Amino acid sequence: MTDLIKRVVIENVTPAVDNGRFPARRAVNETVTISADIFVDGHDRLAARLLYRRAGASQWRQIPMHLLVNDLWQASFIPREMGIYEYTVTAWIDRFDTWRSQVSKKRADGQNVSVELMEGARMAEEAAARAKKEDADQLNRLAEQLMSSAAAEHPDVFLNDTVFAGFMKRYPDLSSQVDYPKVLPVRIEPRRALYSTWYEMFPRSCADDDPARHGTFKDCIKRLPYIAGMGFDVLYLPPIHPIGHTHRKGKNNTITAVPGDPGSPWAIGAKAGGHKTIHPKLGTLEDFRELLARAREHGIDIALDMAFQCSPDHPYVTDHPEWFHLRPDGSIQYAENPPKKYQDIYPFAFDTPHYESLRRELLDVIEYWIDQGVRIFRVDNPHTKPLRFWEWLIDECKKAYPETIFLAEAFTRPKTMYRLAKGGFTQSYTYFTWRNLKWEIEQYFDTLTQTGVKEFLWPSLWPNTPDILPEFLQLGGRPAFILRLMLAATLSSSYGIYGPAFELCVNQPLDPGGEEYMDSEKYEIHHWDLEAPNTIRPFITRINRIRRENPALQQTRNLMFHPVDKEEILCFSKFTDDFSNIIFVAANLDPHHTHSAWVQLPFEQMGVPVGKSFQMHDLVSDARYLWHEGYNYLEIDPGVVPVQVFRIRRRMRTENDFDYFM
Amino acid sequence: MTDLIKRVVIENVTPAVDNGRFPARRAVNETVTISADIFVDGHDRLAARLLYRRAGASQWRQIPMHLLVNDLWQASFIPREMGIYEYTVTAWIDRFDTWRSQVSKKRADGQNVSVELMEGARMAEEAAARAKKEDADQLNRLAEQLMSSAAAEHPDVFLNDTVFAGFMKRYPDLSSQVDYPKVLPVRIEPRRALYSTWYEMFPRSCADDDPARHGTFKDCIKRLPYIAGMGFDVLYLPPIHPIGHTHRKGKNNTITAVPGDPGSPWAIGAKAGGHKTIHPKLGTLEDFRELLARAREHGIDIALDMAFQCSPDHPYVTDHPEWFHLRPDGSIQYAENPPKKYQDIYPFAFDTPHYESLRRELLDVIEYWIDQGVRIFRVDNPHTKPLRFWEWLIDECKKAYPETIFLAEAFTRPKTMYRLAKGGFTQSYTYFTWRNLKWEIEQYFDTLTQTGVKEFLWPSLWPNTPDILPEFLQLGGRPAFILRLMLAATLSSSYGIYGPAFELCVNQPLDPGGEEYMDSEKYEIHHWDLEAPNTIRPFITRINRIRRENPALQQTRNLMFHPVDKEEILCFSKFTDDFSNIIFVAANLDPHHTHSAWVQLPFEQMGVPVGKSFQMHDLVSDARYLWHEGYNYLEIDPGVVPVQVFRIRRRMRTENDFDYFM
Repeated sequence: MTDLIKRVVIENVTPAVDNGRFPARRAVNETVTISADIFVDGHDRLAARLLYRRAGASQWRQIPMHLLVNDLWQASFIPREMGIYEYTVTAWIDRFDTWRSQVSKKRADGQNVSVELMEGARMAEEAAARAKKEDADQLNRLAEQLMSSAAAEHPDVFLNDTVFAGFMKRYPDLSSQVDYPKVLPVRIEPRRALYSTWYEMFPRSCADDDPARHGTFKDCIKRLPYIAGMGFDVLYLPPIHPIGHTHRKGKNNTITAVPGDPGSPWAIGAKAGGHKTIHPKLGTLEDFRELLARAREHGIDIALDMAFQCSPDHPYVTDHPEWFHLRPDGSIQYAENPPKKYQDIYPFAFDTPHYESLRRELLDVIEYWIDQGVRIFRVDNPHTKPLRFWEWLIDECKKAYPETIFLAEAFTRPKTMYRLAKGGFTQSYTYFTWRNLKWEIEQYFDTLTQTGVKEFLWPSLWPNTPDILPEFLQLGGRPAFILRLMLAATLSSSYGIYGPAFELCVNQPLDPGGEEYMDSEKYEIHHWDLEAPNTIRPFITRINRIRRENPALQQTRNLMFHPVDKEEILCFSKFTDDFSNIIFVAANLDPHHTHSAWVQLPFEQMGVPVGKSFQMHDLVSDARYLWHEGYNYLEIDPGVVPVQVFRIRRRMRTENDFDYFM
Repeated sequence: MTDLIKRVVIENVTPAVDNGRFPARRAVNETVTISADIFVDGHDRLAARLLYRRAGASQWRQIPMHLLVNDLWQASFIPREMGIYEYTVTAWIDRFDTWRSQVSKKRADGQNVSVELMEGARMAEEAAARAKKEDADQLNRLAEQLMSSAAAEHPDVFLNDTVFAGFMKRYPDLSSQVDYPKVLPVRIEPRRALYSTWYEMFPRSCADDDPARHGTFKDCIKRLPYIAGMGFDVLYLPPIHPIGHTHRKGKNNTITAVPGDPGSPWAIGAKAGGHKTIHPKLGTLEDFRELLARAREHGIDIALDMAFQCSPDHPYVTDHPEWFHLRPDGSIQYAENPPKKYQDIYPFAFDTPHYESLRRELLDVIEYWIDQGVRIFRVDNPHTKPLRFWEWLIDECKKAYPETIFLAEAFTRPKTMYRLAKGGFTQSYTYFTWRNLKWEIEQYFDTLTQTGVKEFLWPSLWPNTPDILPEFLQLGGRPAFILRLMLAATLSSSYGIYGPAFELCVNQPLDPGGEEYMDSEKYEIHHWDLEAPNTIRPFITRINRIRRENPALQQTRNLMFHPVDKEEILCFSKFTDDFSNIIFVAANLDPHHTHSAWVQLPFEQMGVPVGKSFQMHDLVSDARYLWHEGYNYLEIDPGVVPVQVFRIRRRMRTENDFDYFM
């Protein structure tokens, strides 16, 4: 049958990022649900199949799709391997199902269906022609029986015959089949890409025994129990390479360094080497590999910072001047954002005829660290390098190492951030850092989790970074730190803090109104008193344990806000698909005053049977409340804990008719 | 430069229906605004152009795009001809603009820019190499001047030099240019497709002089002043063809007709002919052409009903049995929706090897009536024929007759309705007929006018049809008829009524709980008393005049609802792009009781300067109110008029400093 006569329509197959130009993103073992609008003129019944495979495989795996409502069909599969999968959809008019449902309705109305039985016989004969020998014989026999007077007297026997239906399903008439014209990709990421808990730390500030000493990887190893004890599983280190001397920045970002100033780790490269070299004072490559191994014993992956830029002393500058912009006076163009100048940094020039050798070298840098065992990279300022460069780089890496994770540190305009994520970045920094009010948190996270953005951008929430001490933390005191920590940890399945500044509630800015830390670790070595009494370490430990024990918090797209008639109280829930784990979070966004609210939750939508009371177990304070249908009362004193993280413990009826709370 | 190094990104060019698979829809002389997300890594400035042309033209017309906000760029054009236009977008890094803005910032900061001037000189030389001779000379001179000591002393002269800037704009460096990979289509429709006012009428019920007589086209001509007097510009006639005798339906849809029953006009075809023949009792082809001509004198277009189905007596049945489904017993399959049977109707079979000759014949039917001068077709039940058939048919018609209008009578599931519109139907019936509550009206019309649906579906609102007497009209009395009329007339720029049943407020259903009319005109000839005292003809006349005089009501995508804290009061506004015409509608949705509300309008968004009072002129009652910022009071008695249609008359300050209301 020519395409002209094809009647079935397949539209809007999702997920599809930019119509399939980019892959959607899912984690290994996470259910991938494919939806499509499928319909046909008239009243015919349809059948549809999802076809999927690992990219490159020759055979499709096929599973039937199911009609949900209003021409929306769905099917799901669970990818067991990392890498690219692809899928498409096919559908056809199910003539047999159409016939059977129509004849059944006529029977129920008492109509004569003898001609319809002849049609059924004809269909059975046609199926026989498509069938293998033994099935064909049975189908032909069925066709004969349908034409018999016995069939005319008892047609329902045939309408309800599962053997007949089984054969017809096995040999369907596919002459009306229509294929969706696109094959769509989905990238399957490692589980840690979806659920991760980051701790950022300057290794050079780890010499706990001697405040005057430059910390080393060996010191980092000693710090591991402290970090693992709080429940972190990614330890992210700022650049570990030799630091330039030319135009080195002094303490608090002053223009001229004095002797002893260690310089910014982001001014990469000196005589000792560049992006593939370790700063001599941190230790040796062996020390670094030892750190990787010891961290792994604690369940911690090391994340390296990839800042693709050079100090003027980087070996690339002399060996490969063609990778930089030369000014008409023969000097190399330093970084600038007029009127600001960054003379200690030379950016690479990507739009030159030397692009190919540059990108190969940068890939080589990544692969060098992959060879040492690193699998997570936090990429510095990716939005100042070409978007297509990242797409190529990440794709190349992931061909051989699909478990690699790239976190995009791009605090820029939304479309560029989206494009970086579409183009391959596994996780993305977000505006969470500055979203403090209820409406702005709800609006922003609805965009991230309820629109098309959810298909490709996995948010990583940071209440602070070495560059950003938000005003909310400067002014809100210790409750503000606990609040922002717990929001980050529950709104997204991936979050991170820059410590120990965070857990010690460091809140002194360089300038009032600015966001730089006073005496920033970016320019000097610190000694931290990890046992200071104001540490919020117990809260960090608690919330990370709650995350570990509650799979609902190990996803982000399941976020659902609930309206509360109080601007200071934010409420949201997350639950697993099977409702076995239901988390309800209530936060007092005001770090200074107690607030209360009456809250009504859509319990039915959350899988909680109504008409019964059930326990609300606050996993932070361990308090338990009995809640019920309708409105329930909440009161939150930020001086105690500004956030309540309830697990809803449902009353279940067992086979023996006892109630219990799960 | 290879594509690999291209840094500019162009995404999300809109309008784009299914990523360009279908054309968007606009009217001739309506502004077409194209948007795109365009961005680049880093801080470079961009330039972008919209390229558009009539499909088939060899040359693109190019116009610059403008950055609005957040990487969103726009440009507009006004199509002067009907048919398909196409467009795409191109963008590049504007090196000169980047240079000029950065150097200006450095100057403002007091920095030395001598090297930057050398860069400027280099750019001027490169532009000279792209320029024609005399311009090249000037550019080379400019390059020399930029290198001079005078330039170093007074660089601002060059930065602000419009001649220099003009040359650089004329010969841009396009090495970074990126083209959007798709060319997108938009179909330009006749103006009447966007703004039309329909009246449906059975010609056979037009014999005003003799109730016993079968009405004729000549009677229709006599009825024209009545129709035009109410302000209608489309007169839509149910099928005008010979009616079958076999299984003809009697009065009130009874199975057996008695002699004298005229039959349903949708049972098309008898010995006298089929779809290209006129029912002998209506008159001759000449009479029909006379009706067309006389209607045109009244500014009225005739719309024909295209019902692609046959009575058993249609000549096609004997001449082309291959166009129908043959059952195994040799009979032709009649229409059915089990358990319902429609034995007076044979549907065409589209999925057969004879499809090609069938579709050619059906196109021929349309072209036959186009040859008689008909340009508007109301298509009966298009959702029971293949969706790709319509796409082909409408496309074929519009190639030669782009002014043709097709209205889809598909009351079916939303995705099928959308697909019919995407596939070419100019206007679409909607669910308006059953949307009576505020939330359902707001939700439905937000979907139609504020989502992607607005790009392709042009709604035609019908408060009633010969098939549908909604319960709201059955029970709401005369105020319900006025309410539904005025909502239809103001919510959409196209609407229609089935008269005279509508203007005479006929509200007797065949069955309580059903929607069929008692004594439906579909099965018998009526005599209407057009001068009956309960006619709402004056309201129809008034609202259609308001539509004609207010261009804001001649569009639909400009609909904006306003929240009102009263479920019975619906408020919305429409205004022209230039704010010269601002209409605000307030409707009391309860036909039984008076309701009132305090209303706050977003006057600034509506182009009304705040801080002043202004006139609200109710164009229905001609009353005028002085309104002001903040809350204003509304009270609507449905017994008087259930809808107020205000024109906001703004106080304007003239050159002579007098105020006046426009």
